[in-house]
Amino acid sequence: MSATPEFRSIVNRLPCRVHWGDCDPAGIIFYPTYFRWMDAATWAFFESVGYTPKRMREEHLSMPLVSADCQFLSPALHGDRCEVHSRITRFGGKSFVVAHEMTRADGTALAKGTETRVWGRALPGKTLKGEAIPDALKALFSER
Amino acid sequence: MSATPEFRSIVNRLPCRVHWGDCDPAGIIFYPTYFRWMDAATWAFFESVGYTPKRMREEHLSMPLVSADCQFLSPALHGDRCEVHSRITRFGGKSFVVAHEMTRADGTALAKGTETRVWGRALPGKTLKGEAIPDALKALFSER
Amino acid sequence: MSATPEFRSIVNRLPCRVHWGDCDPAGIIFYPTYFRWMDAATWAFFESVGYTPKRMREEHLSMPLVSADCQFLSPALHGDRCEVHSRITRFGGKSFVVAHEMTRADGTALAKGTETRVWGRALPGKTLKGEAIPDALKALFSER
Amino acid sequence: MSATPEFRSIVNRLPCRVHWGDCDPAGIIFYPTYFRWMDAATWAFFESVGYTPKRMREEHLSMPLVSADCQFLSPALHGDRCEVHSRITRFGGKSFVVAHEMTRADGTALAKGTETRVWGRALPGKTLKGEAIPDALKALFSER
Repeated sequence: MSATPEFRSIVNRLPCRVHWGDCDPAGIIFYPTYFRWMDAATWAFFESVGYTPKRMREEHLSMPLVSADCQFLSPALHGDRCEVHSRITRFGGKSFVVAHEMTRADGTALAKGTETRVWGRALPGKTLKGEAIPDALKALFSER
Repeated sequence: MSATPEFRSIVNRLPCRVHWGDCDPAGIIFYPTYFRWMDAATWAFFESVGYTPKRMREEHLSMPLVSADCQFLSPALHGDRCEVHSRITRFGGKSFVVAHEMTRADGTALAKGTETRVWGRALPGKTLKGEAIPDALKALFSER
Repeated sequence: MSATPEFRSIVNRLPCRVHWGDCDPAGIIFYPTYFRWMDAATWAFFESVGYTPKRMREEHLSMPLVSADCQFLSPALHGDRCEVHSRITRFGGKSFVVAHEMTRADGTALAKGTETRVWGRALPGKTLKGEAIPDALKALFSER
Repeated sequence: MSATPEFRSIVNRLPCRVHWGDCDPAGIIFYPTYFRWMDAATWAFFESVGYTPKRMREEHLSMPLVSADCQFLSPALHGDRCEVHSRITRFGGKSFVVAHEMTRADGTALAKGTETRVWGRALPGKTLKGEAIPDALKALFSER
């Protein structure tokens, strides 16, 4: 759609597990759980390059969502050990896209989704404003 | 994209509210909450045409997800009174698409999303199988 | 235990419903859901006497927990229409106790629990400090 | 209260983390999260002695709650790395009590709670019935 070449991103891996309370009466994962995982995976990804929750908090940074989507490929069951693989597929001026793949320990693809987020700052008592994503930040995610 | 005309659906309204625990440290709704709302809205929609949770359970019917997406248009705050407006935009052979609009009581559009689901039956001890959606079921959702 | 007579409280009623995603693979409500209900019920109770979420936010007030407990009396199922009845059983200097009863529309007692909370204020950038509960606030909850 | 000596239990450790979506607008953990952790910790504890989610499912076993309580000792923040330490403090005929301690990596006690559960079996299409807890099962949790 766009002429912008896809960003060549490092990949982060977040282990996770399907808990009893993450499943529904059909005995499979309740689908909003995948979005909770994707959110946690994005925070873990930023932490892996130095943007820890503590730093984000101290610098009043956050990453509100523009959109999110997910395809559900195979049902996950209580007790499944899984991993979320995350990479950044695009950096815009103030926004970016994170792609996530959820797989079970046996290699089965469970789900894959994307999040489009804004990079923003909310000073105390003020509403959040999008900020230009620093090149130095983009570089941290760049495949070496 | 498809030659299939869009299904002319009735619309269901589900009131809901942004609770304290639905919000994150940025003070706005945590985005997976919208997917929880969409799921509850689809069940409420089916209940409105006679497919109550009790009936679904007794007939071993469920509606697993193929995919889901949501666009976040305006941040919701703790205490906001909202409504989910749901309609069916397409019926396939065994699958269907539900479109949801989340609005605040003051009319502000908060988010809009879709769910693609399979109509299926899981007899006790068996895995779920997709089933042809009965015409009688489709008719229940048809705008009169 | 204490010589303090029990506070004679008004009662608030919060309707709620057991959603698909609130249930676990055993087909009954996942128990932390009751604590989510109790939290929402306490906020609704304070709103009913004029302490709306908006006002709490603007005055930097919150109500962190000291403890919580719940007894589970009868399993709730997907689709059950319920109500949380809340009253304040004790006001201390800076803390208070809210008792909640969860019942199904048919009158079945589902669960009952209590929350002990602190009345506190967290000015921007500061940590929360407990505050003496104003007599005027206590009076709002007093049975007339 | 009872003459029964306290059960001398092994201890299980479940690492966990405070995610963005586990926190509320006050920036601290939303308290029902602790109950979600306690539930996951009990399942992990049983898994550690051979009762995996898969086995529980195949043998139609579950562990519904009688009651649960928690004291909140220190607020947890987004990003905190924590651990739940679980042990069984009492085995009755068909019920048992699990005590959980939640601590942060720096050793801070965050919360401690207990769950009282029934050991039960629900054959397909039947409601759950409590079962006598086998001595062999109790022995698995006994400190050597």
